[in-house]
Amino acid sequence: MVTLIDYDHASARVRHVYDDIMATRKTSHVNNFWRALAHDPDTLEAVWSRMKRLMGSEADGALDPLTKELIYLAVSVSNGCEYCVRSHAAGAERKGMTAAQYAEMLAVVGLANETNRLAIGYQVPVDDSLR
Amino acid sequence: MVTLIDYDHASARVRHVYDDIMATRKTSHVNNFWRALAHDPDTLEAVWSRMKRLMGSEADGALDPLTKELIYLAVSVSNGCEYCVRSHAAGAERKGMTAAQYAEMLAVVGLANETNRLAIGYQVPVDDSLR
Amino acid sequence: MVTLIDYDHASARVRHVYDDIMATRKTSHVNNFWRALAHDPDTLEAVWSRMKRLMGSEADGALDPLTKELIYLAVSVSNGCEYCVRSHAAGAERKGMTAAQYAEMLAVVGLANETNRLAIGYQVPVDDSLR
Amino acid sequence: MVTLIDYDHASARVRHVYDDIMATRKTSHVNNFWRALAHDPDTLEAVWSRMKRLMGSEADGALDPLTKELIYLAVSVSNGCEYCVRSHAAGAERKGMTAAQYAEMLAVVGLANETNRLAIGYQVPVDDSLR
Amino acid sequence: MVTLIDYDHASARVRHVYDDIMATRKTSHVNNFWRALAHDPDTLEAVWSRMKRLMGSEADGALDPLTKELIYLAVSVSNGCEYCVRSHAAGAERKGMTAAQYAEMLAVVGLANETNRLAIGYQVPVDDSLR
Amino acid sequence: MVTLIDYDHASARVRHVYDDIMATRKTSHVNNFWRALAHDPDTLEAVWSRMKRLMGSEADGALDPLTKELIYLAVSVSNGCEYCVRSHAAGAERKGMTAAQYAEMLAVVGLANETNRLAIGYQVPVDDSLR
Repeated sequence: MVTLIDYDHASARVRHVYDDIMATRKTSHVNNFWRALAHDPDTLEAVWSRMKRLMGSEADGALDPLTKELIYLAVSVSNGCEYCVRSHAAGAERKGMTAAQYAEMLAVVGLANETNRLAIGYQVPVDDSLR
Repeated sequence: MVTLIDYDHASARVRHVYDDIMATRKTSHVNNFWRALAHDPDTLEAVWSRMKRLMGSEADGALDPLTKELIYLAVSVSNGCEYCVRSHAAGAERKGMTAAQYAEMLAVVGLANETNRLAIGYQVPVDDSLR
Repeated sequence: MVTLIDYDHASARVRHVYDDIMATRKTSHVNNFWRALAHDPDTLEAVWSRMKRLMGSEADGALDPLTKELIYLAVSVSNGCEYCVRSHAAGAERKGMTAAQYAEMLAVVGLANETNRLAIGYQVPVDDSLR
Repeated sequence: MVTLIDYDHASARVRHVYDDIMATRKTSHVNNFWRALAHDPDTLEAVWSRMKRLMGSEADGALDPLTKELIYLAVSVSNGCEYCVRSHAAGAERKGMTAAQYAEMLAVVGLANETNRLAIGYQVPVDDSLR
Repeated sequence: MVTLIDYDHASARVRHVYDDIMATRKTSHVNNFWRALAHDPDTLEAVWSRMKRLMGSEADGALDPLTKELIYLAVSVSNGCEYCVRSHAAGAERKGMTAAQYAEMLAVVGLANETNRLAIGYQVPVDDSLR
Repeated sequence: MVTLIDYDHASARVRHVYDDIMATRKTSHVNNFWRALAHDPDTLEAVWSRMKRLMGSEADGALDPLTKELIYLAVSVSNGCEYCVRSHAAGAERKGMTAAQYAEMLAVVGLANETNRLAIGYQVPVDDSLR
């Protein structure tokens, strides 16, 4: 439905983001996600800037980069976004994720989705000790 | 809507689970979630057994217990389950979660929820390199 | 945020729906849901008409009325709509739902929410035999 | 899984709806959605009637037809319904939607999905001024 | 992304589950779902055990097996899990589900999803009579 | 659970954002949402910057500010975020939203949520004309 914008057809503003993606990720390939988002340069810049700062392999945060990829994957699986699952599973593997870690993340996602609905269905009141 | 089943009014089968919860968590308080689930002993046993094995502080898995709590919290926030957010935030704090880690987990959950919809909305095809 | 429209302040068109609700349900109480929806008479008429025809206790369909209430409840729990859970739980009880049936419905909702994410997370391809 | 019901194999009741769809939309093509829904004539009639009245290009409502298509698209993207995104994107284009409008709608959908989870995750209490 | 584990390559622990699936379902085919889940034997055992006990055609519960399949399908449709919809639709057919029952279940799922959002959007307060 | 950070206790970096919010919105009140987000200055800056640029009443985009508020509300209702519904309903009212427009937006949200599930449940294939 939406065309992907190649480097050769991109505006200077979009090329600037593409250049940063390629330099940051040490690759000559810009993923389809960014090439679709290039239709909206404001959003492209804002999302890439957040992704680089928050999820980058050299990000200096309270959580290590792999843990953040697992959290990102957990949400994407829970929301059913196939593209996001595939692209971030690849990203997580580059950061060292093992098959056993992926499987255990999925097990937690499954359990949380189950217990979320049990808590809602039983309309469990919040414990005084948790307030 | 649903009453909570106290230890004194619980069947032997339910008491057995309560005893294990209290022993495992070194507490005399059984959370409301379990006391509601006690209406369905089959589910109580199955969910507690999974929770203990997968999420326990001594669980021997591919991911450390705190990482799994963060994944569990990420899903619960994304699904909007208040009870689950509150009870597992308390659990994560007991396992050492800092305020900065909680905030960074939320930032990832927010970003993933945003990019999930951008990928879907642009109907981004999966890159050949990701197949 | 939204005011509830009482019978005395309702237009003739809205009163006509309220009258039908009270006659169909053999009650003098019109639930808050309908009194909020009265701000939009088109939607009030359309939704009430569907609800009466599809979910009515005398509806003549392929599924019995209680089964349909359980399906309705399952979706409402899965979506986290507290109002819908409470109002349709009361409706289901009037149609004979037992506490054990409610609990078993919740167990299925929990299991489905878990396995949905496992199937998505493992990107399970559809079996040839299921196509 | 579900067969599509062609005009030639449709009942008189279903044909009546198909005729109205073709006349209203000035086309000889009845979309697959309606041809699947034809398995349930009650729902076909109810949904088509709502769609025509609420979303029709000549609908006389508080919002203009294009705004409503954008709202419809926003929900469909947020829910991840590919069929709905594609069919209503085409519908919105017929009503004049530009590529820039589609992109900006997606940006809002992304931002709302992000901030929804931040509000939930921080358990932000409603401001007194908003009550 | 994830490989499927065939019987011949499965561990003794996984084979034990496969054997039980084939014996319980009287088939020589183990669905792809289980063959993917075999990467995580703990989860495979826990989910199969729940599925067998809760959803089995000979399960002895408060709800009959077909009703539970319809509830399972309703949740899976609402969540947009294609694999789950296809595999459990086949399962429900084996338990006697008619096309009319499937269509009526979908109509209820559609109505519940609509009214859930109307209740949330109008911020309808819970009736005193429902507390 | 999370404390709200008042201006007097905020860092210079957070105060800078608070100042911009108050100047942009011509108010001395900083909503609770921002005062919670202040725990994570990076996210506070990024989200406020996006919100201001995309949703501001003087934003110069392809869609007018009220249309974007309606889209934002539609997503928030669909996701069940009470805080977001209340705060952005107030924002939309300031931009001129009428009660009839709010009601019609909700009607579209309800219809989209219904038809999304019908399209998924019937597994409707995308029409060739929509590819």
